[in-house]
Amino acid sequence: MLAAAAASLDAMSTLNLETASRLIAAGQETARELGVRVHIAVVDPAGNLVAFQRMDGAWLGSLDVALRKARTSALFPVPSSMIGEMSQPGGPIYGVESTNGGLVSFGGGLPLATADGAVVGAIGVAGGLVEQDVAVAEAATKAL
Amino acid sequence: MLAAAAASLDAMSTLNLETASRLIAAGQETARELGVRVHIAVVDPAGNLVAFQRMDGAWLGSLDVALRKARTSALFPVPSSMIGEMSQPGGPIYGVESTNGGLVSFGGGLPLATADGAVVGAIGVAGGLVEQDVAVAEAATKAL
Amino acid sequence: MLAAAAASLDAMSTLNLETASRLIAAGQETARELGVRVHIAVVDPAGNLVAFQRMDGAWLGSLDVALRKARTSALFPVPSSMIGEMSQPGGPIYGVESTNGGLVSFGGGLPLATADGAVVGAIGVAGGLVEQDVAVAEAATKAL
Amino acid sequence: MLAAAAASLDAMSTLNLETASRLIAAGQETARELGVRVHIAVVDPAGNLVAFQRMDGAWLGSLDVALRKARTSALFPVPSSMIGEMSQPGGPIYGVESTNGGLVSFGGGLPLATADGAVVGAIGVAGGLVEQDVAVAEAATKAL
Repeated sequence: MLAAAAASLDAMSTLNLETASRLIAAGQETARELGVRVHIAVVDPAGNLVAFQRMDGAWLGSLDVALRKARTSALFPVPSSMIGEMSQPGGPIYGVESTNGGLVSFGGGLPLATADGAVVGAIGVAGGLVEQDVAVAEAATKAL
Repeated sequence: MLAAAAASLDAMSTLNLETASRLIAAGQETARELGVRVHIAVVDPAGNLVAFQRMDGAWLGSLDVALRKARTSALFPVPSSMIGEMSQPGGPIYGVESTNGGLVSFGGGLPLATADGAVVGAIGVAGGLVEQDVAVAEAATKAL
Repeated sequence: MLAAAAASLDAMSTLNLETASRLIAAGQETARELGVRVHIAVVDPAGNLVAFQRMDGAWLGSLDVALRKARTSALFPVPSSMIGEMSQPGGPIYGVESTNGGLVSFGGGLPLATADGAVVGAIGVAGGLVEQDVAVAEAATKAL
Repeated sequence: MLAAAAASLDAMSTLNLETASRLIAAGQETARELGVRVHIAVVDPAGNLVAFQRMDGAWLGSLDVALRKARTSALFPVPSSMIGEMSQPGGPIYGVESTNGGLVSFGGGLPLATADGAVVGAIGVAGGLVEQDVAVAEAATKAL
């Protein structure tokens, strides 16, 4: 997966706005089924915003969390939860969250890759329970 | 308690996601007519993001500018250009741009108000020439 | 336009200065009973300051803690201690403190809600032992 | 050790909360006469907050400006407008506003000194026109 990620970064292909919007819509559909109000951010491979939507009534504090989850899974193109597994006390990258202006190391961030493994961005979801955020992010990535 | 919190946030005089999305779409239509690729950000009255879209190919450096224009016109609910007129060297609020985490004092930020004058947020546009950004922002606000 | 903007900010579900001042006074009375000197911050639902008072002799380092406790319980409208329970190593939102510009995840921050459940702000207290800070914050909220 | 530390903080030449509150009340009286809604911050000689009040309906963007005006006139114990005169393009300290985490160089910040000239803090006012902010700050300092 690391090799694929490195290759894709060289290629620097970014998902377009139409795709980002489709992913957000797909995620919101799942959020509504789960009865949660979430923020969804889609970023390019460098972690910069492509599209963002706050569902009405989503917690204000989750806004920044969604942005950082997306950024985390763009800069390190793995699920944000994987960063969390390695950044626990005693873990190999303990404290990595304080790098890159602040990462998020629990679930809800996912890299976005094309069928041939090229990473084209990342998505970050926050506002529900972590497992709900993950479900929304996974539903969104299926629309890629 | 969660439901109560969400309800109270709804009660704030903040434009909803549907409205924010309509404004962005209206702005993009004008941007396409002008042949420019812009970032459009819509924020609540406290300057926090409601929705954001980057048109494909928009300059990366304009992304932050759009976010800050929107934030500027939310925190000080006047056109961002008006801040610029007063913050020039020798002007009454010279240097105000360095407050509030960094404001933008040229055109492209506009407050969003309902017919009865209630400010419900702000919009920020960046990516074209300043007059193009202003035209896009004005077209967007007409969709309110 | 200025008048309209001010009016709309009033319309937000934010507690007013008179209420904020009454809460702070109530909290200080409890602090004096406990023999502690605390900082008390009251913020609006977006985490921005409405009123703040430092009791004479309160520790300087607790000032920022009080501000962040209030901000934490505004952005995530639950007691700040609840964030702490979930953000421990191995917890579901481990490391969330590094989001939103820095949160505080121990007791002393409480959301402020009206009888009908509308969140109108939050309070943050720091300067004593955590249980003392919590007692002061709880005494303050009873004055709402 | 705790008691000793608290005692020593008292010994610093810092105005106490009672004085800070009296100054804020005096400033607000003038603000009401002028028909403006302002934020008033009182800080100690190191620029740290002693007391703060936002009048209902004051512009959100002025909150940070008031805090920075007070901080500016504490760190450099002169009227904040005096910093502005020297920080214009071509001036002796051009760009000084970007030091100390961000200063404000227009009127509304004033140092607070006792009769014998000892600086005990500073006040910052924002929300009205600059001359109104200055009038409010001056009225407040007369209550010292």
